[in-house]
Amino acid sequence: MQRWNVAITGFGAIGRTVASLLLQRQAHYAQRYGADVRLTAVCGSRAGLYVPEGLPGPSGPAREALQAGLTGAEFIEQTNAHVLIDAGPTDFETGGAAYVYIRSALSRGLNAIAISKGALIFDLPGLRALAAANGVALKFSGATAAALPTIDLLEHNLAGCRVFRVEGIFTATTNYVLSQMMDGVALPDAVAQAQQLGMAEPDPRFDLEGWDTACKTTLIANAMFDANITLSKVERQGIDQITRGDVDGWKAAGVVPKLIGEIVLGEHGVSAAVALRTYPEDHPFAQVGAKMKAISVRTDAMGEIIAICRTSPLATAAAALKDFEHILMKR
Amino acid sequence: MQRWNVAITGFGAIGRTVASLLLQRQAHYAQRYGADVRLTAVCGSRAGLYVPEGLPGPSGPAREALQAGLTGAEFIEQTNAHVLIDAGPTDFETGGAAYVYIRSALSRGLNAIAISKGALIFDLPGLRALAAANGVALKFSGATAAALPTIDLLEHNLAGCRVFRVEGIFTATTNYVLSQMMDGVALPDAVAQAQQLGMAEPDPRFDLEGWDTACKTTLIANAMFDANITLSKVERQGIDQITRGDVDGWKAAGVVPKLIGEIVLGEHGVSAAVALRTYPEDHPFAQVGAKMKAISVRTDAMGEIIAICRTSPLATAAAALKDFEHILMKR
Repeated sequence: MQRWNVAITGFGAIGRTVASLLLQRQAHYAQRYGADVRLTAVCGSRAGLYVPEGLPGPSGPAREALQAGLTGAEFIEQTNAHVLIDAGPTDFETGGAAYVYIRSALSRGLNAIAISKGALIFDLPGLRALAAANGVALKFSGATAAALPTIDLLEHNLAGCRVFRVEGIFTATTNYVLSQMMDGVALPDAVAQAQQLGMAEPDPRFDLEGWDTACKTTLIANAMFDANITLSKVERQGIDQITRGDVDGWKAAGVVPKLIGEIVLGEHGVSAAVALRTYPEDHPFAQVGAKMKAISVRTDAMGEIIAICRTSPLATAAAALKDFEHILMKR
Repeated sequence: MQRWNVAITGFGAIGRTVASLLLQRQAHYAQRYGADVRLTAVCGSRAGLYVPEGLPGPSGPAREALQAGLTGAEFIEQTNAHVLIDAGPTDFETGGAAYVYIRSALSRGLNAIAISKGALIFDLPGLRALAAANGVALKFSGATAAALPTIDLLEHNLAGCRVFRVEGIFTATTNYVLSQMMDGVALPDAVAQAQQLGMAEPDPRFDLEGWDTACKTTLIANAMFDANITLSKVERQGIDQITRGDVDGWKAAGVVPKLIGEIVLGEHGVSAAVALRTYPEDHPFAQVGAKMKAISVRTDAMGEIIAICRTSPLATAAAALKDFEHILMKR
């Protein structure tokens, strides 16, 4: 069996979920791919752990087991992994620690899987060039709507089709807040509920102003269609200005509002936007309730295809491990 | 560039659509995969054509260009292809000509892509074993709901997840007839409409009695979950006995009927069934209108995922070429 050492950087809730899910699937990897997968290293921002023969399962190491100082650029150098999964915090300004980890991994011939969006938004072209130069994979399903198939839908299930338009409910938080508002809840209360459920950040503006949707839309457009779009140039609406009057109007009209990320592939190139749209009640998007996401892709030969799924931290971890499994399939 | 010669057996409407779509995509295959793809041979039941350097595009050969006699088992021997795409008629009793073509292709080291279900229902285990023994691929998206991602959804987008249940609207004909009946059309008239649209066969019983859904469900269960299910043992309902009273009852209850193929993976193994189910109007399946198909998959880590798409002869051809592209991706 081929040995696959996996390192995880960022060891918060998502990183720990990835660790335990990976450990639970070791027998599956052995059976399906003949792959001897070991979780050999994890680190957070101040401490880490390296166990050359692999950590025991099924739930990953306790935080207390981490050793102070084994973190940062040296972590990748010292831990001899084949695959890096980064689950660290997002930094859109500089790419943050994730950018350092991913660059270091790709440069050393590790495959890299990103979950947070910061490093990718900061420098996707640079990271992709580095991956190509080193003959390794850079994957990021976790950053492009997680369990919802987006990049894999476009490149695998629709292989060969010309895509005209991609439209998606990519941000669960805004979809939750909009759904609650349509049920009569006021905006601040709906946001507070989302925060209590762990769906919205303490500062919810990133989601509410449409930035999260803009990030995912930009990443999909640039990764799949070489769109070369800059986040700041994406036309963008949010849901932070919605009033009770808007809600009443939509209800009277029998339509359902959704915050949409949209990519249009036209004669003059690729454009991306974030827009607040309304859908009639018999449209599949109208049924995409709170805590769900959806994508619609219009193509030449296969017509329109729609995918809908739920969102959860476990699903995000599973999306990163889907990326890992696609790497195993190719080797 | 690596040369890929493609042969198509069965040259009716679907076979011709596959031919022209393949020819239109030659530049795409070259650019994306470095593959020099040629359509070198086609045949129907009485005549065929072999052009070693490849047929010109963009629309494939006229029927008149085919030479009498170049067909049957010798067609595969004489035409030096790397990939066979079979688009011939379905024969559930013996596998028919498709079975001969696919066996002959796999034995000689060709990858095979099946569109019709007959040969697969007749002997999927035998064909898969033959493919494995010869180190080639056997693919059949066209036989398992075409443009709707079914096998590829399960093995690619949900890689790593444990599947509990698969539920699908796999037959467009029955979905069309049911939708029309809910709009007040009588069963015989709805069937006649479907026949006029080319969606139903002259003998519509195969669809109406649930056999088509049973075939697709069985193929998915056996291909993905090694279920070893025999078609005749699948519990099966049809829509041929539905009355006006049933329709009135569903309308009064605010539910929508769908003919469903279902696979359940339980503690005691895998079971498959075809059942008439009703869904509340806010369920995504209730919105899957005439000419559409859908699948729902429930998993451990990713929860429920739903895909919905339209159906057309072009989409069926595109599904077979999606299979072809997945073969190119792996080489």
